[in-house]
Amino acid sequence: MDDIGYKTPLKIGYLGPIGTYSEVIALYLCEQQGGCCELIPYPTIDAVIRAVADGRLDQGIAPIENSIEGSINVTLDILAHDVDLYIQQEIVLPIGHHLLQKNEPDAITAILSHAQPLAQCRNYLAAHYPQARLEAVESTAKAAALVAAGPPGYAAIGSARASELHKLKIIDSNIQDCDRNSTRFVLITPEITSVIIADKEYKTSIVCQMNGERPGSLCDYLLEFAKRKVNLTKIESRPARTALGEYIFFFDIEGGLHQPAVAEAVAAIREKSLRFKNLGSYWCSQL
Amino acid sequence: MDDIGYKTPLKIGYLGPIGTYSEVIALYLCEQQGGCCELIPYPTIDAVIRAVADGRLDQGIAPIENSIEGSINVTLDILAHDVDLYIQQEIVLPIGHHLLQKNEPDAITAILSHAQPLAQCRNYLAAHYPQARLEAVESTAKAAALVAAGPPGYAAIGSARASELHKLKIIDSNIQDCDRNSTRFVLITPEITSVIIADKEYKTSIVCQMNGERPGSLCDYLLEFAKRKVNLTKIESRPARTALGEYIFFFDIEGGLHQPAVAEAVAAIREKSLRFKNLGSYWCSQL
Repeated sequence: MDDIGYKTPLKIGYLGPIGTYSEVIALYLCEQQGGCCELIPYPTIDAVIRAVADGRLDQGIAPIENSIEGSINVTLDILAHDVDLYIQQEIVLPIGHHLLQKNEPDAITAILSHAQPLAQCRNYLAAHYPQARLEAVESTAKAAALVAAGPPGYAAIGSARASELHKLKIIDSNIQDCDRNSTRFVLITPEITSVIIADKEYKTSIVCQMNGERPGSLCDYLLEFAKRKVNLTKIESRPARTALGEYIFFFDIEGGLHQPAVAEAVAAIREKSLRFKNLGSYWCSQL
Repeated sequence: MDDIGYKTPLKIGYLGPIGTYSEVIALYLCEQQGGCCELIPYPTIDAVIRAVADGRLDQGIAPIENSIEGSINVTLDILAHDVDLYIQQEIVLPIGHHLLQKNEPDAITAILSHAQPLAQCRNYLAAHYPQARLEAVESTAKAAALVAAGPPGYAAIGSARASELHKLKIIDSNIQDCDRNSTRFVLITPEITSVIIADKEYKTSIVCQMNGERPGSLCDYLLEFAKRKVNLTKIESRPARTALGEYIFFFDIEGGLHQPAVAEAVAAIREKSLRFKNLGSYWCSQL
């Protein structure tokens, strides 16, 4: 062995149990780290992020957006309102949802999954299983485990890995309501990243609440990006949690804060905002 | 009796069973109609909206936004992608979530509710019941029924009406993560409303996909409103369902299409859009 020093394994949390899409990301990141990681499953996304904030984890993996179902609100809201953490990396994972059952010929009376896959397969389920009871559980892997242990009429929506782990049959493949289904995951850390990797594509995420809620003010904000030729990849509004009709905005920006045009646009936005939070610059990869 | 003709009762669908917040809205609308309504509970929001589209209902009630948890994606997505229906009325309901249990002294091992209240009480639940298993079921009323029939350690999050209906004790009141919690419901109909009630405040909702996805183009859109002094109450992006990073935008506009400035701004937006859908002008009330 070349490495003679002892390296403390990096503690990375993910939405468990094993067999979730989050675990796929955890395994990929662990490989990137040369395998020196302790991967710790948590029962909810919320618990993963709070464990990073509490110092029980070095890093946490959280899904942040799906191409069919949109933003993962819990991730956005906790990052905006409840913790001071940063995004270090973004990983896009193509998602295939499969319908899993213990014994193929049983009529399906209940379909279990995480709320997101249930939503992503809404049209398929309404067309093929209008009578089945839909039950949202904590994760796709949990759903597969419940189906493996449950009565014959139960089915789960989950990954091919979940079917292997729980010895379930794939009775229908890629049942999501859109051919191109993928989910963006983010790696969350307590410290802002200062290392810039030269050949990587960066993005920057910020959250702000405007001074004034009129269409003119959002336009003022957008012009700060447009006049510096800085592109946005996403604009998302979420409740400010003050009253119905008051919002905070998430901007995902092409480029990192190490690029002058991005830094200037972000400084201008910060200046104009009632509330402002930098979620960091991070590099993006596609699995 | 003054009324000698037979009036066919209006069929209004809502997210059931009885005891849901949607039923509160259904009862209110039925009263507005002089009581001549058949109120029909459905197991999901999706099923309510599709039943209006299929002609099995005259009208359907769907929650569209909560002040803490934000947009109800299923409602937005079905209206944008899957059906051709219109909003006739908006009703805002103040929401108080309570923790309900069969017998007060039992330690709580599982908390059941609809996914929205579970999300709206996330911080409370993490602080007070970190060990409890959270289970999302179809509705708050369903959760109350399951707790009434279930083992002693089960609790539900639901309305005061659900506690009465299922003889559960309210062990903690107003547990939502924000004092001012309210939900916007919409009444959905197959026909666009042409009747304008003079003393009512109107809003108009449209959905569009822009020609070009740059911050400059959203700004062009917003300027069509700003230059006519037309205010927006909400801007929401949702996935276009074509690829990650492609979005449709929902605009909620102050005023109805019977007002020239609103009509002109909407016509300009329609002209600029790749896809465009008018969800109608509707009047707003607060319960």
